[in-house]
Order: sequence, then structure tokens, then C-alpha cells
Amino acid sequence: METRYQQLANELHDLIRQGSFQPGDRLPGVRQLGKQRNLSIATVMSAYRLLQDQGLLESRERSGFYVRARHNEQRPQPRFLNSTTAPALVTGQDMVLQLIKAANNPAMVQLGTAIPAPEFLPTRAIEQALIRAARHHRVRSANYEFSPGAPELRRQIARRMAEAGCGVNPDNLVITNGGQEALSIALRAVTKPGDVVAIESPAFYGLLQVLESLGIEALEIPSHPQTGMAIDALELAINRWPVKACVVVPNFSNPQGYCMPVDNKQRLVQLLDSRNIVLIEDDIYGDLAFSGHRPPLCMGMTKTNNVILCSSVSKTLSPGLRIGWIAAGRFQQRVEYLKYVLNVATPTLPQLAVADLFESGVYERHLRKVRRNYAQAIAQMTQRLLEYFPEGTRIPAPKVALCSGWNYRITWTPLISPAKPWRKVSVLHRALSFHPASSTVILFGCPARWCGARALKKR
Amino acid sequence: METRYQQLANELHDLIRQGSFQPGDRLPGVRQLGKQRNLSIATVMSAYRLLQDQGLLESRERSGFYVRARHNEQRPQPRFLNSTTAPALVTGQDMVLQLIKAANNPAMVQLGTAIPAPEFLPTRAIEQALIRAARHHRVRSANYEFSPGAPELRRQIARRMAEAGCGVNPDNLVITNGGQEALSIALRAVTKPGDVVAIESPAFYGLLQVLESLGIEALEIPSHPQTGMAIDALELAINRWPVKACVVVPNFSNPQGYCMPVDNKQRLVQLLDSRNIVLIEDDIYGDLAFSGHRPPLCMGMTKTNNVILCSSVSKTLSPGLRIGWIAAGRFQQRVEYLKYVLNVATPTLPQLAVADLFESGVYERHLRKVRRNYAQAIAQMTQRLLEYFPEGTRIPAPKVALCSGWNYRITWTPLISPAKPWRKVSVLHRALSFHPASSTVILFGCPARWCGARALKKR
Repeated sequence: METRYQQLANELHDLIRQGSFQPGDRLPGVRQLGKQRNLSIATVMSAYRLLQDQGLLESRERSGFYVRARHNEQRPQPRFLNSTTAPALVTGQDMVLQLIKAANNPAMVQLGTAIPAPEFLPTRAIEQALIRAARHHRVRSANYEFSPGAPELRRQIARRMAEAGCGVNPDNLVITNGGQEALSIALRAVTKPGDVVAIESPAFYGLLQVLESLGIEALEIPSHPQTGMAIDALELAINRWPVKACVVVPNFSNPQGYCMPVDNKQRLVQLLDSRNIVLIEDDIYGDLAFSGHRPPLCMGMTKTNNVILCSSVSKTLSPGLRIGWIAAGRFQQRVEYLKYVLNVATPTLPQLAVADLFESGVYERHLRKVRRNYAQAIAQMTQRLLEYFPEGTRIPAPKVALCSGWNYRITWTPLISPAKPWRKVSVLHRALSFHPASSTVILFGCPARWCGARALKKR
Repeated sequence: METRYQQLANELHDLIRQGSFQPGDRLPGVRQLGKQRNLSIATVMSAYRLLQDQGLLESRERSGFYVRARHNEQRPQPRFLNSTTAPALVTGQDMVLQLIKAANNPAMVQLGTAIPAPEFLPTRAIEQALIRAARHHRVRSANYEFSPGAPELRRQIARRMAEAGCGVNPDNLVITNGGQEALSIALRAVTKPGDVVAIESPAFYGLLQVLESLGIEALEIPSHPQTGMAIDALELAINRWPVKACVVVPNFSNPQGYCMPVDNKQRLVQLLDSRNIVLIEDDIYGDLAFSGHRPPLCMGMTKTNNVILCSSVSKTLSPGLRIGWIAAGRFQQRVEYLKYVLNVATPTLPQLAVADLFESGVYERHLRKVRRNYAQAIAQMTQRLLEYFPEGTRIPAPKVALCSGWNYRITWTPLISPAKPWRKVSVLHRALSFHPASSTVILFGCPARWCGARALKKR
């Protein structure tokens, strides 16, 4: 249940976003608004302070609350890196083991990985769903739930995809052990070692690891910080190179956070269809739009069955459940088989618990809440980066993000682009972490110019 | 808790196995034994009937109960196939999809897969352990348990391995999503596509699938129905071919069910050590010896760190939990990384539940019970096969097996070897299933001579 002050804050948030209050505008006085809305002064003050914490308002002494100038307009945005590259094998990705080790250290802040903060997850609802599933499906959950996976979960996923404008038969879905496994299986279903796959630049480092482990050559396509993969650049690239598949995160790609405009999505789908190149659409962030408006899926824009969609609940509900899926289109049989060979089945109990959370509406209610939490965390984090990071740091304005935002417990991947663009495929491995206790920036495998970054002061 | 008649039956079972009662011997009369042991006639009768059901005793009218002639000595055993083969790529393994589809059909009996029957699993204890873990680790279980996996589970596995004579540091264990994933990661850690790997012949079909999916060439080494892989044949083969690794199931290999003698294990380890060839030891059946005596691990017989051990709880506790592990020796870092790239982490909750079941002693108590159940099921199933399968059918005498045994709900893989041996790598794909309702044998991909197998009568 939302409290009154949260309701009011959300309403004001919407008014600011829609432009009813412009940057620099003064909001109604606390007493005045309380009287209008029949709310106590304390309630209105709480709402204003919440918006202030979110970076939307600023308080000016003896004058009131004003809408802050938008970060998007003020701060330097990452540049569009119009690099031209040839396909290349990905190397050196095992450096990520340092990140994993750091993730198990509670004193270490992760800037390089998109791990939801525990306090943003509906852990009680998940606990209850797991206990219900364990009780109601005692015998079933002790047994294999063979590929393609639990029918009730596949039905719920198909229902949600239909709501996102993409009709899929539940029989054309395969449940996986999380989104990374989905990506790995999808790539193996359509490529063999040595093939060329077009990817966004910069791209999610997990994708780079999968490509390296499969011996697939990556062809980087420049991607715009606001609109994503440049379709013209992609067309030039596939004219020149034997591209077998194209992996894109159209909705809120990590690390840039953009949402590809619908027109671009349509162009992307048509272009790949016309060349018979498979599109692997990674949609793990699709449910997290700050606007609450679920962007459409590329898979829903074609009838050719040439798109494979990968997704999971790891960024929304819980990474520990390890539930992902593949809508495999015409590759269904191959994908089912590869999943079977890889690890026979996804654990039964988490599948049944997630189906329950989808069906009961808990998931949808959680989404409404967590989107606001993430928006707030992004605002706070952006503020911190602007304050403490070196001059010239460029920060994107993501439309979605995973970020705890409190006391530097940041889990969103900001793209810190220095004056000269990073060009190598492994660029995203140069992840940043900083340590709140020692207030020191720790840069993993960073280029030389970063090593002198000044120590961070802890607030 | 065991009832009195079960205790008596177990005691008599041991006496028969140890030879105190020989085949053809008459057991003491029911009244006489009841008086000796201070048990009711009904209790003794129940014990005798249980042993009769297990195929150990036969009742002769008005004469009493006699020890049956041993199946092992009476029935034809599978032959030792001394085939010489060259390394070859494995093909056609996606036929297994037919088996998966059949597995989801409750009316279908699986003879081709080693899936524990639900009634043999400790589903209540698992349910309770899952609920405890969900409650006590609410926040933790919603989050990633990064590679190498939950420390408490790794500690318990290391403790159990030490009891099996193999000291391993918990930091050298990686938790996986079941045993098949462990096998797949272990192979990827030590080979690349095109490499040659020596395997048992016949071998577990899941291994053949992994080899096919990784593009690894299989080199079949003849394996004796009672003693396993022929070490001399292996030595000849590695003199001739560039073998990179050797995958063996020394304890109760599927499908033959043998346990490799300790001397052979030592020779195997020494031979591979001397050539610097990695031994991948698959131990998923090691805890299920009918004798109750846990056979030693090859990994405990060398200090070279040249052995990788793969195992899981899928054949003992529950396949639905999908908990397996790798003791990676000197490949720890590579294995951790490959696990991470594959699917980031194994689900958290099942790891904590299995650690609990190990630590509380529930697992060990369950093993004592399930070993007897499996022994009984094997005896019943062997009887059925002898009665209903064609003349010339050869049936191994496994020392361990997974088999429900009731009303044909068989899940153990019998090796049905026809008059002429099957030589192809894909032989085990020719799995058999039969359908209890229609009483018809269904043979997947069987050779022509099997197609005319007579319909089975249902008891």
C-alpha cells in the first residue's frame, strides 16, 4: 500500500515529467497545497522531500521548492562513437572473475554489474510463493521438469508477451536457468564457432563472454546513446561481412540505457528479415521502463519466425531464482535439445513459484513499485557521479536502470566515457568499483588515464 | 523407522548375500523362526514374502521357502565387446528428444533413462528443507549465489568426499545445475572442438550428447560388463591417438552397472597421470552401492590434481533440485569462469536445502533405505525382462541401479544386447520403452531385428 505522501509525490513526479511544471518553476506552497488537497502539512512536506531526494526538486531557503534543471540537459552526454571495425574474436573476458570475487565482498561497491539491490526485491512474496509451491507440488518439484519447462510458467510468459504485442504459443517457449543461459543457447542454436555476429557497441559484457566462450566473432555496430544501434551502420556492416545473427537489447540496453524508437525497431527487423539474418532480442529490462509504458518487442513486428527472444526475471523479481526463457521461433526444436544437453532441466520449484507470482498479480504490483525505486536511485547516483567523478565524465540518462542508490550501493552500470572513446570489444570489462570504507576508486583493468583518478570522498 | 518384518528381511537378505544360505537351501520354517526370534508368524511371513518379491526366495507348496538360484549365474550376461574403433564425431543424438517427450507422458514406461521413481525420493524431507531455507535465508535466496556456489554446501560435499577417501578443499568445488552441466563444463575446461576424448563403450548417452554438442571426437574403449573400462585397451588407444581426456564412470556405470575394481582404478589413474591426460570421473551413482560400502574415488588415488570429479544428487535425492558439482583440481579457475559464463549461478535455494539435508543426516538415512528399494526393484525388473523379452536377451547384473520396479515403472537402463553386438557410438540411443496400457513394446530407433519383438503381456 502506498502512503498518502507517496501518492502525492508520484502525482507531482508525473506532472514534472509531463512538463506541467518546468525546470525552475516554483511548486505550490506547502500550506496552500495541503489545504487544496485536504492533506496535513507534514504529508505535503514528506512528498516534497521525497522528490528532493529524487533530485527533481530543490529547496531554496525562505522561498519554497523549485523544479531542478534537468540533468539530461545540463550534463555532458556520452558521445556517439562512430567507429568502424572488422569482426574479431573476443578475448580476455575471464577478467570478470575479479568482478565475481568482488561481488561476494559486502564492503565492495559494484559499478560494473547490473545486480538488483536486495532491498528492492519482493523477498517476502518470493518466500511465500516458494513455500506454496514446495507444499502444493511436493512430488513434482522433486522431479525433472523436462525441456521446454513447466507449462503453467510458459502460459504466463506467453500471456505477458501477448500484452507486449507479441503473440507466442506457449509450446514455442523454453525455460532456462536465467537470461545468460538463454543468450548462450540462442547463439548456439543459430551459429557455429567462427561465425560472425553483429552486436551493439558498447554491449553488455556478459554477451562478450558468451561470444568468447563459443569462439564467435563479434562485429561491433555503433550504438547511439539515446536511440541504440545505428541501423545504417548495421546495413553497411552486413553488406560487407557474412553476419549470421544480430544480438540487440532494444529496450534499455546495458550500459547505455536507451530505448530504441519503434521506427528503428521496425527498420531493424525488416533489414534482418530481408537478409535472412536471425535477430536475437534480449529483453531482460523491458518490464522496467520508468514511464510504466512497456515498449513493444521486435519479435512482435514480423511474422517470419526469424527472431529469437531471450528474457528473465533476474532484473525484476530475483536473480537467485535463476528463471529465464527463450521464445525460439523456428528454432524451437534445436533450442529444446540444446537446453536438454546442457543441463537436462531448469530446477522445478522456482519455475512454479514464478508462475504463481505472475498469475497472482504480485509481479505486476512489484513492477509498479520497483520502477519508482530505480528512478529515484538513478537520480541519486547521477548526482554522486557528477560530484565525485573526474571532470569530463560523461553520464548517460538511462530510461531504466538497476541501482540501489543508497550510500553508494550502486549496481547499475554507468558508462563512463573518457575524452577519447574506448574502442576495443573488451571495453566494458573495464568495470568500475569503489570501496565506501576506504573511499578509494578501484578500477579493474582500466586504461592508464584512469589510474590517477582522484580518491572519492565519502559523504 | 523400519518395521520388524523389514528388519528381519534385511537380516536374511544379508545372510543370503554372504552365502550363509546358498541357492536351493531351505529357510527355517515360519513357526520355528518366529519362536526363535520371539516374533509373530505374521511378521515372519511378511519378511519371507518381501524376499520372495525381491526374487531371492521361492515358495514351494507344502514345503516352505527356498533360496532361488542366482540370476547372475543362470542368465546370459552381456558379452565383452572387444571392438577396435577410431575416434569419431558423435552424430544423431538429438533423437533423445523423443525420449524427453515420452518422459512427459505418464502412460509411457522409460527403459532408456535413469530417472528415479518419485516414490523412492524423500519428497517430504526435501519439502521441509526447502521451506526452512526459504524462511531462514529469505533475502539471500533471492540473490545470486555466485560461482563457485554456497560455501555451506561446498563444505558438506568436501566432508562427504573425505569420507570416501578423497580430501578436497571446499574452495576447489564448483556447484552446478546438475551432473550433466558438470560434465559439460569439465569437458569444456580441458578440451576444444576437434579434440579426442576416450570414453567407455557402451557409455551413458548424455555424455555422447555433450560430446556431439561440443564437437569433440569420441574414442570408444571396450568396457567389461563386470569390471569396466579395459585398461590395456585404453593404453593401446592412447598410444595411437592424441587423447586429451578420458571420461569414466568407475562406480556403477550406466548402462552396465559394474563397479571398477580398486586395482583397475589405480592402474587407470597411473596410466593417465603418466601421459598427462586428464581423467574426468563421473561419480553420480557412487552413493548407491547395494552393499552399502562406498567404493573409493579415483580422485583420491593421485596427488597430481589431474582428475576432475563430477557428481550430483539427481540419482539419490532429487533430480528436480538440479544440484551437481565439480571438484576441479587444477582447473578450478577455468571451471568457475565457464560456469559463470554459462548461466552466472546455480539457483540459491536448492543449494541451501541440499546443504541442510547433508548436514542433518537425512541424506545418509535416505541412502540406506533407497539402496534396498533399488535392489528390490532390480530383482523384480530382471525377472520381468527374462519372462517377456525375446530369447537371447542378455541382461547385466548391476550392483546399483535406479528402478521403480512396480508395474513396469522401470527407470533403469538395461543393456539389451542382441545376438550380434551393436557397435555404433549411438547404440544407447536405441532406448526401449514399453507402454503398460497397450502392453506393446515401443522401440525407439531400433535395428530391424527388434521391430518384430512380440507384444508384452501385462501381468
